[in-house]
Amino acid sequence: MRISFCCTDTKAQPWLEGLRAAFPGAEVEVWSAGAAPADYAVVWAPPQQFIDEQTQLKGIFNIGAGVDALLKLRLPPGVPVVRLDDAGMSVQMAEYVCHAVIRHFREFDGYEADARQGKWSYRKPRLRTDFPVGVMGLGVLGARVSRALAQFDFPVAGWSRSAKAIDGVKCFSGQAGFNDFLAASRILVCLLPLTPDTDNILCRDTLARLRPGGYVINVARGSHLVDEDLMALIDSGHLAGATLDVFRTEPLPAAHPFWTHPSITVTPHTSARTLREESIAQIAGKIAALQRGEAVAGVVDPARGY
Amino acid sequence: MRISFCCTDTKAQPWLEGLRAAFPGAEVEVWSAGAAPADYAVVWAPPQQFIDEQTQLKGIFNIGAGVDALLKLRLPPGVPVVRLDDAGMSVQMAEYVCHAVIRHFREFDGYEADARQGKWSYRKPRLRTDFPVGVMGLGVLGARVSRALAQFDFPVAGWSRSAKAIDGVKCFSGQAGFNDFLAASRILVCLLPLTPDTDNILCRDTLARLRPGGYVINVARGSHLVDEDLMALIDSGHLAGATLDVFRTEPLPAAHPFWTHPSITVTPHTSARTLREESIAQIAGKIAALQRGEAVAGVVDPARGY
Repeated sequence: MRISFCCTDTKAQPWLEGLRAAFPGAEVEVWSAGAAPADYAVVWAPPQQFIDEQTQLKGIFNIGAGVDALLKLRLPPGVPVVRLDDAGMSVQMAEYVCHAVIRHFREFDGYEADARQGKWSYRKPRLRTDFPVGVMGLGVLGARVSRALAQFDFPVAGWSRSAKAIDGVKCFSGQAGFNDFLAASRILVCLLPLTPDTDNILCRDTLARLRPGGYVINVARGSHLVDEDLMALIDSGHLAGATLDVFRTEPLPAAHPFWTHPSITVTPHTSARTLREESIAQIAGKIAALQRGEAVAGVVDPARGY
Repeated sequence: MRISFCCTDTKAQPWLEGLRAAFPGAEVEVWSAGAAPADYAVVWAPPQQFIDEQTQLKGIFNIGAGVDALLKLRLPPGVPVVRLDDAGMSVQMAEYVCHAVIRHFREFDGYEADARQGKWSYRKPRLRTDFPVGVMGLGVLGARVSRALAQFDFPVAGWSRSAKAIDGVKCFSGQAGFNDFLAASRILVCLLPLTPDTDNILCRDTLARLRPGGYVINVARGSHLVDEDLMALIDSGHLAGATLDVFRTEPLPAAHPFWTHPSITVTPHTSARTLREESIAQIAGKIAALQRGEAVAGVVDPARGY
């Protein structure tokens, strides 16, 4: 068996060692142009040439949850494309989103600004019933984030393409449920896959439907959000601000106004990192399953886009 | 029935209105020296004179969870002293503590400092197994905080005077379990009642037993912590820092070094506020129960101190 590793922005050596340890008999190598075709590919944003050279693939493993970059390539028909399935990401996402929601709801930014001036301040407690949270995307990550938020007694709504049911979460679905979902939300969390249907979904039309004082948390992809529309709605006073972890161009360019906007918190795509050990173990387990002819979880539907 | 309201630092009118609405026939008044004795007292840090004038009390209701200030007074023997029992405080405490723990674990302070300089930074993800959290005090607040932390997959230990059992939390108790509890903790959350036994409990001896890189979150009472010992252990490098919401003197004096210490976050006793509506409803329910001769929850044992 031959496994080819082709991941941009990723230190290869620990992955090679981990995969070799899992499959002692296999050849596990970093791809170079013209290398022998592999049985399995472990990829992150590979070039089209890599795909084109693979003539005998039995599986393509994406070392992240979002496959939007991969699906832009011409992929060999019939070869399963498999994304990471949690692998330690959902708990990180729950942490990131709960931290951002609590920080906004409890005004901890304001308290810290006061404290920097040595000011012992009083702010009237807010009612959590005034801060319903809406989660867009109810896959592995969205479901865990929703449950984590519900634990803090926030009213939580969820929206997904197809209907879902999650305890303690008011679930909406499809185009028919979209406006009702938005009207029920004040804090909006985007955890959608990036597809042609969800590109630019956080635009003026959408964000204007949030309750006044709305707040946006984008932890999915930068292309979900129309940057200028967000800023216009903050500057007009309809939205209170945003916490953004993902951007159209990453790293976020130095001149981008998000960096200095007083109501926008920027983090460097750190909400849920691929954890190497968990991911290697998951991918190795799935390769072994495919070898045995078994089905695996996390297979992407290219037509659906995730 | 006569209810006397004697609470420092509290706007009386909404409380009077709430209690009058609950008991239409009752006299509900703010205490003034020499007023007729009441059947029930609703108090926060009342003067001794108030207590001394009450000759027919059937219950004293403290509008907070901590009764340390009240128990310093000479109280009439046999009159139940009742503290608030959650009343919306445990969820606030869970929010505050989870926010502080996540913020420290995920280094969000550091990311924000980088972002203020327009810097897209990378930090190696930390392992949550390296950040076990220890919660001191497993009453209503401590139990909820422990469960909330466990939900984020942190290893959670708890310590209390008498033995407790909480799902997903490794429980230690009493003096015998104290050092093992500390050695198992890196982030230490104090939610103890303030009693002669717990006064100054967060001292050099105790804090030095935390794992290296320890972090202290005090949301109980300022007198639990020996301020100088905390700062000495941070400055020596054994502790990484602290988030403090309570202080020996409140408001925290302008000259106190906590305000400007780079590794200490100060908030103005805001972790869990008394929520008026929930508290009035709870106290009214308990007065009605006492009137009917029934037992109520939250009765303080003065010998134990909470």
